[in-house]
Amino acid sequence: MAAKPGIPKGTRDFSPVEMAKRNYIFNTIRDVYHLYGFQQIETPSMEMLSTLMGKYGEEGDKLLFKIQNSGDYFSGITDEELLSRNAAKLASKFCEKGLRYDLTVPFARYVVMHRDEITFPFKRYQIQPVWRADRPQKGRYREFYQCDADVVGSDSLLNEVELMQIVDTVFTRFGIRVCIKINNRKILTGIAEIIGEADKIVDITVAIDKLDKIGLDNVNKELAEKGISEEAIAKLQPIILLSGTNTEKLATLKTVLSDSETGLKGVEESEFILNTLQTMGLKNEIELDLTLARGLNYYTGAIFEVKALDVQIGSITGGGRYDNLTGVFGMAGVSGVGISFGADRIFDVLNQLELYPKEAVNGTQLLFINFGEKEAAFSMGILSKARAAGIRAEIFPDAAKMKKQMSYANVKNIPFVAIVGENEMNEGKAMLKNMESGEQQLVTAEELIGALTK
Amino acid sequence: MAAKPGIPKGTRDFSPVEMAKRNYIFNTIRDVYHLYGFQQIETPSMEMLSTLMGKYGEEGDKLLFKIQNSGDYFSGITDEELLSRNAAKLASKFCEKGLRYDLTVPFARYVVMHRDEITFPFKRYQIQPVWRADRPQKGRYREFYQCDADVVGSDSLLNEVELMQIVDTVFTRFGIRVCIKINNRKILTGIAEIIGEADKIVDITVAIDKLDKIGLDNVNKELAEKGISEEAIAKLQPIILLSGTNTEKLATLKTVLSDSETGLKGVEESEFILNTLQTMGLKNEIELDLTLARGLNYYTGAIFEVKALDVQIGSITGGGRYDNLTGVFGMAGVSGVGISFGADRIFDVLNQLELYPKEAVNGTQLLFINFGEKEAAFSMGILSKARAAGIRAEIFPDAAKMKKQMSYANVKNIPFVAIVGENEMNEGKAMLKNMESGEQQLVTAEELIGALTK
Repeated sequence: MAAKPGIPKGTRDFSPVEMAKRNYIFNTIRDVYHLYGFQQIETPSMEMLSTLMGKYGEEGDKLLFKIQNSGDYFSGITDEELLSRNAAKLASKFCEKGLRYDLTVPFARYVVMHRDEITFPFKRYQIQPVWRADRPQKGRYREFYQCDADVVGSDSLLNEVELMQIVDTVFTRFGIRVCIKINNRKILTGIAEIIGEADKIVDITVAIDKLDKIGLDNVNKELAEKGISEEAIAKLQPIILLSGTNTEKLATLKTVLSDSETGLKGVEESEFILNTLQTMGLKNEIELDLTLARGLNYYTGAIFEVKALDVQIGSITGGGRYDNLTGVFGMAGVSGVGISFGADRIFDVLNQLELYPKEAVNGTQLLFINFGEKEAAFSMGILSKARAAGIRAEIFPDAAKMKKQMSYANVKNIPFVAIVGENEMNEGKAMLKNMESGEQQLVTAEELIGALTK
Repeated sequence: MAAKPGIPKGTRDFSPVEMAKRNYIFNTIRDVYHLYGFQQIETPSMEMLSTLMGKYGEEGDKLLFKIQNSGDYFSGITDEELLSRNAAKLASKFCEKGLRYDLTVPFARYVVMHRDEITFPFKRYQIQPVWRADRPQKGRYREFYQCDADVVGSDSLLNEVELMQIVDTVFTRFGIRVCIKINNRKILTGIAEIIGEADKIVDITVAIDKLDKIGLDNVNKELAEKGISEEAIAKLQPIILLSGTNTEKLATLKTVLSDSETGLKGVEESEFILNTLQTMGLKNEIELDLTLARGLNYYTGAIFEVKALDVQIGSITGGGRYDNLTGVFGMAGVSGVGISFGADRIFDVLNQLELYPKEAVNGTQLLFINFGEKEAAFSMGILSKARAAGIRAEIFPDAAKMKKQMSYANVKNIPFVAIVGENEMNEGKAMLKNMESGEQQLVTAEELIGALTK
């Protein structure tokens, strides 16, 4: 008795319709990356554990999928070690490879390994799956795709500008209305400097973020509870209440941060990015948002995140500037800036708003009904001509009942069906049926091609 | 001191140029699959080991990459079992998941799991990597892509015909001249039947294959050495010496196999496939080749393989008809037929024959030289218009030395460079340089777009 097959938890099969939608997402992102001169690379699914371990924190190390060594993976391990049953320690003996956890560390490894072949600035994109042994839950998977673009080897803020243009263009093409949030790590550092509470910056941004919900008094109360001094809270007031246009916000920040060189640098960078983008004219809103504080340890300059306006969902794209991507692999001084589109969340948003263009999801355009060997042979001739003209077409391979064949066309959403019986054959034509309108007309091969390619 | 990073043996990084070439291959195959009504699916990289084990023979089981269970993978294992150090047995306790070894078993699992959602016949294609812990060697990798198309749930030989048309179309598009070899498992069974040596069929095809090299006498000698009776060898003579057109070969086989019902069925099937293809008109040669005997245990009807004519390399595509794909997962009676393109070998052939179309490998079409902030700001305006017109364009992000920027354009094979200095800015124009001819002309944004989109 064969076992009923299943798949590992947190993983997914993608059906033809889901794949068509996913391809639409990936192709749209890819096309825009190309418009901006980014080039694709791919790295192996497995990396050496020595490359991956220690790059994602202790928690990250635990979430790596490790691959058991081939052959006798027990060699070199003492009985005592075995009986210790120390799962983490022995994993590093049983396994020397792991599945990649993100695209950033493999990219850093790639840059270091291929430094002599790469011409900098290197504008690369990468669309590949990553794996995390996370507890699966709604919207969180153990295998999912990342779509990253990074420019490394250039400090220019034009890179930040272009990445925001890419974000704007991609979501405009999707038809998803978004707000692009932008902040700068240097501004956050500046704030910490002027209030003298460098280690409290996350607490501060979390509290500020609640202003709309809980009001100023409660925000200040929360800050005090987090151990921030009265004096510091007083200094924070203009920042908590920061409002108005981006220009107004930047003006306020210049005053508040006048004593912090780093802070002012962050304001200046943001000003350049926002001003240049204003000149270029974005289709979507871009907003300076001081509560944005993603990946503090990693980013060193501009940081950004994208929120969908019409769907309740977390950030659907994010990124920022980092200053030392490759240092951990012994190559210092490589600055970079990148973005990552969240394909799975974009998939959900497009589904919820029903924004997939019809042609993105449609496959076969024409099905020939099969009435038997002779009719099929005749149909195959027209079919070949249709395909040569670029029409995606098929013939039902078996002379099954008409009902079954028509139902196949319906399920596959095929818009046209060609019916070739004895009468049609005698006339050297096919009956072309429009499945939506129900309209039928007797056509030659050329007329059929004309009808489907117009 | 950071360790010099490497990647697991048998795996590869793909550079931008390699990726462009690989995408050209995948896109060509994908486009043709679509023309024939095939739909894409994807399955997870990891499958349950219970799904994979026992499907590829004992050797295959050893070549599976196994993924260590998360958490305490020692639980439920006795000290005695641990100390036995039985690597294979304990792997099944330490690991419950493995990386997929091919696309066929996951596809079978998919069909069984989703049988209620699938409308048959199901024409699916799948382009994904597979992993094998094989000893790496030239042209053999531990991670490589397969590009499979299968039709399941239809016995019709039209499926075989269409798969051969797909093969013909794909290689015509690549510009690779090929010979499509076709055989039929039923013909081989028939031969074994009439000579009464069912278990010797592989020995027979191997010996026949050497006819050109070693001559008839030596072939017969080899057959005798393999323990085939004198009487059987006599009966085999017309088959060993089989020659002429496909029609002539089929005529001979009809006579020789007249006592084998299965053999005659195989001849009849081959006749239908070859005759229909002749009517359709293939661009490449198709040849009935009795020495073709791939995967005997698996295939049950037509089998095929593709050989490149202008490069010395093994089969670059193969496939065939199987009758019980899903039986091992408890779903009987599903017949199917499929092909698999060998992307890595096709990559090598296209490289060797230098057949990549120029536009497939080219990325960015236009680079703006960056002379400083003001010039860059002006250039960004034209750049936006060019991109909106679909031109893949970039600006060098830093105001680096001219030589460095021009060298970037050269390395990236960018055909046009736009130079915007003070003079150009004052005229509201850009100097457009054709990198191949060296020709320069002063153009407006509109003229620039015109020059690059014509």
